[in-house]
Amino acid sequence: MQFTIQQIADALGAEADGNTELTILRVAEPGDAGQTDLAMAMSPKYAEALAAGSARAAVLWPGADWRAMGLEAAIFVPRPRMAMAGITAMLDRGQGVAEGIHPSAVIDPTAEIGSGVSIGPLTVVGARARIGDGSVIGPHCVIGMDASLGENAVLREMVSIGARAVIGDRFIAQPGARIGGDGFSFVTPEVSGVENVRKTMGDQGDAKAQSWLRIHSLGAVEIGDDVEVGANCTIDNGTIRNTRIGNGTKLDNLVHVGHNTRVGNDCLLCGQTGVSGSVEIGNNVVLGGQTGVVDNIFIGDRVISGGGTKILSNVPAGRVIMGYPGVKMETHTEIYKAQRRLPRLARDVEALKKAVSKQGSSD
Amino acid sequence: MQFTIQQIADALGAEADGNTELTILRVAEPGDAGQTDLAMAMSPKYAEALAAGSARAAVLWPGADWRAMGLEAAIFVPRPRMAMAGITAMLDRGQGVAEGIHPSAVIDPTAEIGSGVSIGPLTVVGARARIGDGSVIGPHCVIGMDASLGENAVLREMVSIGARAVIGDRFIAQPGARIGGDGFSFVTPEVSGVENVRKTMGDQGDAKAQSWLRIHSLGAVEIGDDVEVGANCTIDNGTIRNTRIGNGTKLDNLVHVGHNTRVGNDCLLCGQTGVSGSVEIGNNVVLGGQTGVVDNIFIGDRVISGGGTKILSNVPAGRVIMGYPGVKMETHTEIYKAQRRLPRLARDVEALKKAVSKQGSSD
Amino acid sequence: MQFTIQQIADALGAEADGNTELTILRVAEPGDAGQTDLAMAMSPKYAEALAAGSARAAVLWPGADWRAMGLEAAIFVPRPRMAMAGITAMLDRGQGVAEGIHPSAVIDPTAEIGSGVSIGPLTVVGARARIGDGSVIGPHCVIGMDASLGENAVLREMVSIGARAVIGDRFIAQPGARIGGDGFSFVTPEVSGVENVRKTMGDQGDAKAQSWLRIHSLGAVEIGDDVEVGANCTIDNGTIRNTRIGNGTKLDNLVHVGHNTRVGNDCLLCGQTGVSGSVEIGNNVVLGGQTGVVDNIFIGDRVISGGGTKILSNVPAGRVIMGYPGVKMETHTEIYKAQRRLPRLARDVEALKKAVSKQGSSD
Repeated sequence: MQFTIQQIADALGAEADGNTELTILRVAEPGDAGQTDLAMAMSPKYAEALAAGSARAAVLWPGADWRAMGLEAAIFVPRPRMAMAGITAMLDRGQGVAEGIHPSAVIDPTAEIGSGVSIGPLTVVGARARIGDGSVIGPHCVIGMDASLGENAVLREMVSIGARAVIGDRFIAQPGARIGGDGFSFVTPEVSGVENVRKTMGDQGDAKAQSWLRIHSLGAVEIGDDVEVGANCTIDNGTIRNTRIGNGTKLDNLVHVGHNTRVGNDCLLCGQTGVSGSVEIGNNVVLGGQTGVVDNIFIGDRVISGGGTKILSNVPAGRVIMGYPGVKMETHTEIYKAQRRLPRLARDVEALKKAVSKQGSSD
Repeated sequence: MQFTIQQIADALGAEADGNTELTILRVAEPGDAGQTDLAMAMSPKYAEALAAGSARAAVLWPGADWRAMGLEAAIFVPRPRMAMAGITAMLDRGQGVAEGIHPSAVIDPTAEIGSGVSIGPLTVVGARARIGDGSVIGPHCVIGMDASLGENAVLREMVSIGARAVIGDRFIAQPGARIGGDGFSFVTPEVSGVENVRKTMGDQGDAKAQSWLRIHSLGAVEIGDDVEVGANCTIDNGTIRNTRIGNGTKLDNLVHVGHNTRVGNDCLLCGQTGVSGSVEIGNNVVLGGQTGVVDNIFIGDRVISGGGTKILSNVPAGRVIMGYPGVKMETHTEIYKAQRRLPRLARDVEALKKAVSKQGSSD
Repeated sequence: MQFTIQQIADALGAEADGNTELTILRVAEPGDAGQTDLAMAMSPKYAEALAAGSARAAVLWPGADWRAMGLEAAIFVPRPRMAMAGITAMLDRGQGVAEGIHPSAVIDPTAEIGSGVSIGPLTVVGARARIGDGSVIGPHCVIGMDASLGENAVLREMVSIGARAVIGDRFIAQPGARIGGDGFSFVTPEVSGVENVRKTMGDQGDAKAQSWLRIHSLGAVEIGDDVEVGANCTIDNGTIRNTRIGNGTKLDNLVHVGHNTRVGNDCLLCGQTGVSGSVEIGNNVVLGGQTGVVDNIFIGDRVISGGGTKILSNVPAGRVIMGYPGVKMETHTEIYKAQRRLPRLARDVEALKKAVSKQGSSD
């Protein structure tokens, strides 16, 4: 895998200058870059480290004086992370899943495997499962019966997809992702303490202790196009309808999405976020790491939550929230500042009480 | 898989009316229901959507006027979620694990496999492990040596059960559940900063930086009857004694239970809850999603925690708690309301200071 | 596996007394101990339970009167948990991975397997991967192409190690640990609402809704010597450079470490802790359970965070923090106490307002 500076610049739609026929094999941080590396130095701060390495070419900001940096060639990009998207896609060396179906894989004879599909060692594909053209399925995956996977999927090792899941094109799943576990849904024969607490905001009443009966998940998981799910994350089956993840949505590692929940398009659910069951999440929502979402609420389009936010009630579209419970970010900041001053405020009040009492007695 | 309305009503012990010989193949939400679906419309709110679908039969609340809804038959249930438990259990189509032991499974010759057990492709069963009658073990599971699994277990794919685990009847494990990892237990040769912080509530003292020595887990995991564990959740081995999960307790996805901890009967541990080591949890406890429990405390019977609660000290039986740190839910609500008013309170105190100072000087 | 009291005392460098030729097979808690068990009774509180069991030998504190406890032999240790480390290491019966390479394992012919390596059933080892001498690899693991594992590794079942990972000696991985998933790194073509919120602390501005482009991970994961990673935890690949875990660092179950992050030596990251991308963590840092760390910050040496802390900004070396957002533990305690008194404070201020208003009007 090697490219000339010109080839990379063309792929990015970017300007290049100098010896654009120079060949590079890898990208590197400026200080680590060797002679065949392309140094990523897209701001003056990063460019300073070029001297510590031996890069001959770099990706720089528009107008950067590449000659003064001792380089032979440069590519200029206005939005560094966009350039990163293009360059890293070109140079990704992948995980080395061999072409074709590994002989140790256990493929049900009724499964439909598209053309140009690679399947790694020891992967299991169930009855009537469909895998779209060009997909790369890593080793040790399980694709359940009647599940359907679109074109050009990339599954890393040990991904499991439950029966009847329906997944769109260009799906990416990191190691250990779990699509289609059963929902966590239980009921007691009589009204439970939890039900009472929800009504009263804190009182269990006289509900008696009972055992839990299981509500099975008859629904499955339905995932749109261009979705990515992180390592060891879990998306549960719906009870009656399907749990749904919209087009372009990305889930980070260890994220949990409960049964019946519907996540819209182009959302980001960051690391260890947990969404309970029957939640409706709009489009372009970003939930920061370790966000928690209580069940049966909605979160409008373009909502953003800061890391650690616990969302306990509906959130209107466009709102930026933070805290436990989650409130508008500016309210959270205001509350937080006031909290820091609380001990002093308490002392002020004590002093006032004394002063007023004294004034009162001196009246 | 198909049932008449009468068969379903009988199974639920519920009343039915109309053409109870009507056959249904699936259940559906009212608006999605086709002619062979049973619509789940157990409150007037859901029943409104019946018109949008083409259900001929529905599950309704007692006294509902099914004829006016255009239905041919109906089942009446007083407690909707209880009916869901019964109906979904009847109609669960499962994951399609074939009967018998798949030829690719690696079963130690000394393992004891009960009668009527199904074992999926590529599952590994270790030396002297026991699997009870009627169990269904999915593909890609690992059951460790000397582990014992009761009757009628259902293991989804990629479940691992460590050596010497003892598990009761009717155990259900979702994909990727980990029973019997080693506990997280380390010690430094001399007193560590953490030990000092615990004693002083914040002061590391002059503890020096040290490396960690490992305490191995000699205990295993012991699980009662009727327990379910969620996708990618983890229950660690005990150090000397076993970690223990009581009868009827259910763990959601990504839940963590640390070494030595004992969870009682009929508890629910919701998504991403984390329980540290050596915790004692009573019976009928419900921990909301992302609850955290510090080590070496007890949580009494029937305690309920709201989502996101961090439990940092013992909790007496029957208490409903919330917050970080967890306090009585009503206290939490009171504190929260006061927090929202804090900025105004601070302004009031400032005004008071001026007023009192002015009155003082005018005396 | 059996040892005399003398052998155990010698291994611990501890004093023993009584019939030190007594043979023990296991260790047990005092109340559960049988005749061939060594009772762990390292404080008077635990020793009380000896009467309920039938131990003939125990590990006790220095100076304990073992004869009065009815024992035949005793070992005396000044630091109980240090003794636990030594004794549990001696008596660990392991998971029973057989010597040699199981015939069902799929080993690439170009992989380099050291001497004395055990590999369990159905494990996959990729092209040019290296496994150091004396390593024990459990069943159902995947070791990616060009990955390198040092000597004496112990991998439990279902561990995955991505391509190009570099791991030191004595690595321990619990079931389902994921090394080398791709980082969670996305960019929008134009400035996004999230970028605006980060600059303004809460205002999305007029950023339009966009889809996310993927930044691939070209880096890998680099892990030092003596590292342990917990069940189902995840460590992501770096974007350009490697994500790095230092020597002697231990990760608990379900811990997440994001791309590019560097964790120093001898740290403990407790259960469900999540560290975002591009974080720099020093040496001897202890993050309590469910700690969250925002991206692109540093955490100095010897920092300790309490359970549930959300770290939103840089933390200087040696600090002990807690809360959301994380602040000095003593500040957190002070704020918390003031919060508990808040409702009363609010009432005091109301009373003051009345009193001052009355005094003002009576002037």
